[in-house]
Amino acid sequence: MAGANDMNIDMIRAAAKRLEGHARRTPLLNSPFIDDLAGRRVWVKPECLQHTGSFKFRGGWSALSALDPAVRANGVIAFSSGNHAQGVALAAREHGTNAVIIMPSDAPAQKIANTRALGAEVVLYDRGTESRDEIGDHLSNDRGLTLIKPYDEPEVIAGQGTTGLEIAAQAAEHGVTKAEVVVCCGGGGLTSGIALALEADAPDMRVRPAEPKGFDDVARSLRAGAIQSNVETRGNICDAIITLQPGDITFPIMRRLCGPGLVVTEDEAMNAMAHAFSRFKLVAEPGGAVALASALYRKDEIEGDDVIVVISGGNVDAALFQTALSRFGA
Amino acid sequence: MAGANDMNIDMIRAAAKRLEGHARRTPLLNSPFIDDLAGRRVWVKPECLQHTGSFKFRGGWSALSALDPAVRANGVIAFSSGNHAQGVALAAREHGTNAVIIMPSDAPAQKIANTRALGAEVVLYDRGTESRDEIGDHLSNDRGLTLIKPYDEPEVIAGQGTTGLEIAAQAAEHGVTKAEVVVCCGGGGLTSGIALALEADAPDMRVRPAEPKGFDDVARSLRAGAIQSNVETRGNICDAIITLQPGDITFPIMRRLCGPGLVVTEDEAMNAMAHAFSRFKLVAEPGGAVALASALYRKDEIEGDDVIVVISGGNVDAALFQTALSRFGA
Repeated sequence: MAGANDMNIDMIRAAAKRLEGHARRTPLLNSPFIDDLAGRRVWVKPECLQHTGSFKFRGGWSALSALDPAVRANGVIAFSSGNHAQGVALAAREHGTNAVIIMPSDAPAQKIANTRALGAEVVLYDRGTESRDEIGDHLSNDRGLTLIKPYDEPEVIAGQGTTGLEIAAQAAEHGVTKAEVVVCCGGGGLTSGIALALEADAPDMRVRPAEPKGFDDVARSLRAGAIQSNVETRGNICDAIITLQPGDITFPIMRRLCGPGLVVTEDEAMNAMAHAFSRFKLVAEPGGAVALASALYRKDEIEGDDVIVVISGGNVDAALFQTALSRFGA
Repeated sequence: MAGANDMNIDMIRAAAKRLEGHARRTPLLNSPFIDDLAGRRVWVKPECLQHTGSFKFRGGWSALSALDPAVRANGVIAFSSGNHAQGVALAAREHGTNAVIIMPSDAPAQKIANTRALGAEVVLYDRGTESRDEIGDHLSNDRGLTLIKPYDEPEVIAGQGTTGLEIAAQAAEHGVTKAEVVVCCGGGGLTSGIALALEADAPDMRVRPAEPKGFDDVARSLRAGAIQSNVETRGNICDAIITLQPGDITFPIMRRLCGPGLVVTEDEAMNAMAHAFSRFKLVAEPGGAVALASALYRKDEIEGDDVIVVISGGNVDAALFQTALSRFGA
């Protein structure tokens, strides 16, 4: 089985080559208004502008493109209620193969519709009475589908890590080589991938995982030096980045390379959404806004003159976005 | 006095050189969902991601950087209630000179605050009782300020035209060399600048100005072959692109190079804002959304397999954005 030691910068560089012309090179943005509020320069890497509205397309494309063509032709399978589903679905369609996505029947209707519209076969299951693993195993064996895990998978981590290669290059264009890089963190695929990329290309940068309060398994795991779990995995608006615990591959990488975790409240995430709206003209989902929220509301826990924050996704319903604006917008 | 014949592609290329490292090269985005709705491929050039939230920074920077340094050091002056104000203010600050912006006292408080926060000296006047031209003349003569006009000014047009150079290069990367290019159109600075750039770099593309219904002075002027005016210049949510009539420099360029104008309703503009939100994770202001609205709701008036639309700005109040989402969001 693959482990953290199997991951290296060459895999990320190889993934970047495979992603070229397929994934978007998102820009690196700044705003004098946000700098004033945060008390230092803030650079935003908006992965909400990535295909399918989140960084997940990078990992999906990386994993699909790394498969043996004969294996890939049989199709892939993924479990997801949201962003990973859409990333894998589009990557599969553009590779001319099939994706089966196992989604809970209570997933937001629009996310199910989007995943279907991207050409995937969506199989719904009842969270209360059915086991998604059983359904998945059955389908995989039956059809020879390859499972694309959401984060604890080397080629997925390599794909997400291409974000870090871009950050290093784009920050250097602005003369920034030393900074804290705050990354919205669920299972740790994006965080560990970026950390590995920066270790090679921007060694004076340090990654800080950001999480919602009450679901700070990564912050606690880093403090404890061993994997800790959340008590709950539901009941927070930052749904896109809530997982039970960090991965067996991602955690050792984060433990070796990342600084202490940053933790923000739901209100702070929504407030950051309103700032992304007014100052960057970007749509961030709550889970995608926790890194920006950290730069704005945990400034005493961040060091240095420059902070780089990743907005990891923008797949938010209109109703929730309106709530954020009505409470915190100007 | 400068005229349309003084404008040429070399001025746009020179402006592009001066803007390098200062203005953002905004990306070119697409979405399979929008393609389906529009019945052809739709490419979005999001100038809402430009510094100060609109393309106006390009023209402001171009004009400021073209001035003789001794003249520039005396400062500049501009009339604007919105996007041009912020573009000139930031360009002046980054050139280390002063900007005086004459704004109506009933301009949105946030726009006044933003312009001040960008370092400009804001002079308010009462639209009902005072003449902004008199105030401007007085200040200019007194202090030797240089007037930066919002569109009928060659170096401003050249700056906006750099958007067209980028469109030609970015579309070609996707294999697109023939397309209609729909541009949100007020006085015609952006539209005529892009048309000149494409004439040189993508001669199989044709620019189509887009305007709100009831304020379609450019569409009517193109039809008549001579400048026509709007009856009103207020009372529409697309305020950013409403001017009395096209400019003396911009109109002859548009007449020579542009196809017929496209006209959309306020509701169609708001509907396009909701689509920009859900499919591109972008914040568009109403006037910035009329080109996308044209691609979605005037498809029978557009030709060919590819349409490129410019989202010209994203400076919209939270309340109006919420209205658009509550009426048209999903």
